[in-house]
Amino acid sequence: MSLVIVGSVAFDTIETPWERREKIVGGSCTYCSLAASYFTRPKIVAVIGEDFPKATINLFKKRSIDLKGLKIIPGGKTFHWQGRYGHDPNQRETIRTDLNVFENFRPEIPASYKKADILFLANIDPDLQETIFLQVEKPKLTAMDTIGLWINSKPEVLLRVLKQVDIFFGNDEEIRMITGERNLIKAGRRILGLGPKLVILKKGEHGALAFGRDFIFSMMANPTEDVIDPTGAGDSFAGGFLGYLDKVGGFSQREIRRAAVYGSVMASFTIEDFGIDRYKTLQPSEVQARYEFFKKLVSF
Amino acid sequence: MSLVIVGSVAFDTIETPWERREKIVGGSCTYCSLAASYFTRPKIVAVIGEDFPKATINLFKKRSIDLKGLKIIPGGKTFHWQGRYGHDPNQRETIRTDLNVFENFRPEIPASYKKADILFLANIDPDLQETIFLQVEKPKLTAMDTIGLWINSKPEVLLRVLKQVDIFFGNDEEIRMITGERNLIKAGRRILGLGPKLVILKKGEHGALAFGRDFIFSMMANPTEDVIDPTGAGDSFAGGFLGYLDKVGGFSQREIRRAAVYGSVMASFTIEDFGIDRYKTLQPSEVQARYEFFKKLVSF
Repeated sequence: MSLVIVGSVAFDTIETPWERREKIVGGSCTYCSLAASYFTRPKIVAVIGEDFPKATINLFKKRSIDLKGLKIIPGGKTFHWQGRYGHDPNQRETIRTDLNVFENFRPEIPASYKKADILFLANIDPDLQETIFLQVEKPKLTAMDTIGLWINSKPEVLLRVLKQVDIFFGNDEEIRMITGERNLIKAGRRILGLGPKLVILKKGEHGALAFGRDFIFSMMANPTEDVIDPTGAGDSFAGGFLGYLDKVGGFSQREIRRAAVYGSVMASFTIEDFGIDRYKTLQPSEVQARYEFFKKLVSF
Repeated sequence: MSLVIVGSVAFDTIETPWERREKIVGGSCTYCSLAASYFTRPKIVAVIGEDFPKATINLFKKRSIDLKGLKIIPGGKTFHWQGRYGHDPNQRETIRTDLNVFENFRPEIPASYKKADILFLANIDPDLQETIFLQVEKPKLTAMDTIGLWINSKPEVLLRVLKQVDIFFGNDEEIRMITGERNLIKAGRRILGLGPKLVILKKGEHGALAFGRDFIFSMMANPTEDVIDPTGAGDSFAGGFLGYLDKVGGFSQREIRRAAVYGSVMASFTIEDFGIDRYKTLQPSEVQARYEFFKKLVSF
């Protein structure tokens, strides 16, 4: 199988209550593809400037990520997001966004990506997400993520994209915004009426819920004492989830449940260090060990 | 085995964003003993006034709850609590408290209770909780619950009681208040250093965590669309948990995990209706069916 991920590769400036990091590598596509690379060989579509670090490109290559769809704009500057987390890692505030090379980005799917089995539209402008459907042959599975900014500013196109995907990844706030429903269970189920066959509700430190049309699956987050940097947790969740499905090549309820646990596992590694630093050392054996830990954590 | 529960039997006036109920039956001992009665025959110690409804006494009897320790004060008025819930059922505000017969309550353990295997000190003034230890022969297992009011107003005696119990039940706010630690995992583990061998961290709609000295167990709450009245969820959790342990007569890690699931199960029923109304119809077969549902909910 094959997994194509369209999203952002970026610089992030991050403030937590304890520490600040200036212009470290981030972006939805970055986190998602790194997480997915522990299961499959993801193909990415994104844009960066000439200022993007070679060391990260080398990390992508070492992780066997297909970079044919990664456009480098000569003389361009990479997209930059600056945000601040409070003591509650589930809440963050955007301080500044420099679009840079993203301003004129029109994602182009390379010929070798067009027969993707799984297509993931990571968080970017839904106008861009919508242009992707025309560029690929019908994937077996499509999934999307978004943020509150787009739900507020571009609801029509967002709902059109939502209607065309099989899986929607959203956090509690986003799912409440889309449906106008406070109760998370009702809200999650309401999303199923808008197109997707599966909704993954991400609740940060409280885990995640997967709503299918005929089942519900609940998974806890890793009970960790140290959340260093929550950035990218959701994108890594999607990466672990879709990477696993791409690897096993099936979408049965049983595989969906396991995929969701692998999603939680990858998110739990991401938040253990700033930016993508954890991926510089993370071993496949650690991924498997944490999956087994999750099993023990909930078994009775 | 036998389970003794010391706590309050009370009237509650409850406001939710949708409805208000005046002087319905509540109290920590009430919820806990009703939940426990699906597993064992709990013995309760509490005080009420003459105004307490006969119908509830009859419900207690029907559920085989031992009422030898339930003192009825002639001419007295039952303790009355009034509270309000916001849209987030995890947050509540106390509007008014009428101690009434509770003002001069000194819990007395009947002779037939003194050899209790499991002793539960449900939420009451920790000064009263402390007097219980002198009145019982050493139980195999003791557990306690409390609220923020006592953590703030009587920290010394509260910590003395905590030091003597095997299990502490607390919600996220209470556990943070006691330890001064924001991270819930650190906070939960810190409680283990204050005496208990097991900490049950109740997170409302986000489930619960059980911290032992050498394990951690995580369980989700029932993903329900309708929380009618969150009052008593924590007390019913303790009731299901301790009732189950009393029934099986063992405290192994495996039984602790199952007990925690039964705790979640009982809490999930309590919140489906106002006050104790759900217990007027709840069948043992429904309890078992929901336990099986929880199993499916988390299995992968």
